[in-house]
Amino acid sequence: MREVDVTDLVGRAVDGSPRAVARLISLVENASPRLREVTAALTPLAGAARIIGLTGSPGVGKSTSTSALVTAFRAQGKRVGVLAVDPSSPFSGGALLGDRVRMQDHATDRDVFIRSMASRGHLGGLAWATPQAIRVLDAAGCDVIFVETVGVGQAEVAVAALADSTIVLVAPGMGDSIQAAKAGILEIADIFVVNKADRDGAQQAIRDLRNMVALADHGPDAWKPPIVPTVASRDEGIGDVVEAIDKHYAWLSAGGTLLRRRLARARDEIEAIAVTALRERMGDLHGDRRLDALAEGVVSGEHDPYTAADELIAAVTKDAR
Amino acid sequence: MREVDVTDLVGRAVDGSPRAVARLISLVENASPRLREVTAALTPLAGAARIIGLTGSPGVGKSTSTSALVTAFRAQGKRVGVLAVDPSSPFSGGALLGDRVRMQDHATDRDVFIRSMASRGHLGGLAWATPQAIRVLDAAGCDVIFVETVGVGQAEVAVAALADSTIVLVAPGMGDSIQAAKAGILEIADIFVVNKADRDGAQQAIRDLRNMVALADHGPDAWKPPIVPTVASRDEGIGDVVEAIDKHYAWLSAGGTLLRRRLARARDEIEAIAVTALRERMGDLHGDRRLDALAEGVVSGEHDPYTAADELIAAVTKDAR
Repeated sequence: MREVDVTDLVGRAVDGSPRAVARLISLVENASPRLREVTAALTPLAGAARIIGLTGSPGVGKSTSTSALVTAFRAQGKRVGVLAVDPSSPFSGGALLGDRVRMQDHATDRDVFIRSMASRGHLGGLAWATPQAIRVLDAAGCDVIFVETVGVGQAEVAVAALADSTIVLVAPGMGDSIQAAKAGILEIADIFVVNKADRDGAQQAIRDLRNMVALADHGPDAWKPPIVPTVASRDEGIGDVVEAIDKHYAWLSAGGTLLRRRLARARDEIEAIAVTALRERMGDLHGDRRLDALAEGVVSGEHDPYTAADELIAAVTKDAR
Repeated sequence: MREVDVTDLVGRAVDGSPRAVARLISLVENASPRLREVTAALTPLAGAARIIGLTGSPGVGKSTSTSALVTAFRAQGKRVGVLAVDPSSPFSGGALLGDRVRMQDHATDRDVFIRSMASRGHLGGLAWATPQAIRVLDAAGCDVIFVETVGVGQAEVAVAALADSTIVLVAPGMGDSIQAAKAGILEIADIFVVNKADRDGAQQAIRDLRNMVALADHGPDAWKPPIVPTVASRDEGIGDVVEAIDKHYAWLSAGGTLLRRRLARARDEIEAIAVTALRERMGDLHGDRRLDALAEGVVSGEHDPYTAADELIAAVTKDAR
């Protein structure tokens, strides 16, 4: 493999080269040794994109909805990125998502970048690689970036933490998906979309959500999540979703919430990188022998794990001087 | 609330007081400020118990199976602990598990300790509080401790990491639970139990598992997971499960695998405690202002998150001297 010229790659990504964008995302996804260099080159170029999370149970029509939203933003002349993150498998290293077919509508559009990512065995993977991939798309001039993920509790929360606005998709006849998700989705949803709204039960789903939203404690200046019915497969209601996204973005910007969310995100990212680095340093300590000796002491009952952790921290700290 | 006398509590737990055991588990579960003291008092007393993980999809009969296994070990005169961990909800702070009814068979038995635990919003919670709760039961003289959790991918892996032996429960007619879990369960299962083996499809489930096990690459000295059919609700096959557990334990002990697993567990625990401590130190830095300033620099594009993380580590390290 040829040596990667990061500066050249970033330059071509900024010029909108899909190949350069794909290459950079691969670099960050595979935790390339050049990751640090890539991130350093991208950071000053990023920050203009709106990041929109989109989550929901399997079968609610996430892919179809995302595709319709991409079309809508393209009609406004916006450059659009899509990251489809699959956090469901703790073992798979591949990124095989279900229905990516709809996305092929955009395959020949040079102003649409679509990428599937696996989360590599843990949600830490999502938290770690996804911000870098977002940065790539942001630097490549995407005005809007969709981060789509299957709603499975923790992944929902993770995607909400990465996004400026989070859309929670539900569909009628999906069993008790609304009930099941109840505890969590209100805390993360900025916009509810009831897809497949031509089906039986759609009005009930809308009523359920309306009651949930009404019962939640919204302060006078708080954002009250709108509930938008759609039939994404026929492009119905997509304009209303775009309007809701725009309204939420205006609210975020006006109240300073956008900056607060982005600062919180940056804090989380810095902390995650620092913790990872310290963890690696712990593992590396004396070829792992120090940690082994401490573990032996815990198993034999010689010392407790807190005392062992103190010694480990002291060792890491000393090595860092 | 009265001041907690940890030494007294631990003493009474060792004497087998259910109230003292319950109190100590509450202390570790709620991350009491006395947690460190509790752990230090427990560590030298723990290490004799066999820790058995039990996982499976909702509806396979985990609770019924655990209850039947408790009865079987009680018949041998063993003291038994059960920790039922619910990792499914990222928001609930409570520990509401579905069918705990069967467990009430053991409610009046002073040699059975049963406790439900919530994982407090993240799997880190499982990894963090569960080892301490296991230590409480171990110090209280439990010969066998079952850690029961709903199989949802990551939780399965987490429970396997905590256990000496891991039982994976499946049931016929549970849709494609075996298929879905395929990638993961082979790596964690020491014993497969096909519960509800009187139902249609049981033979097929057993055949599927047998093929999976046969295809896996077991070395000549490796453990080959047995497949045990049961009807837990009628106590059928439970003796075979106990036999499989005993055989696995003998194999673990003879080959030194038991010690290796326990050392790996202690390493993970020490590292997790150290990382948590360092993370807290990061958050505390200058009343959080240092991290805020670094985050502002990332959002404005002034520096990248890796450079910010370096500064954060340097600050934590300096404070530790």
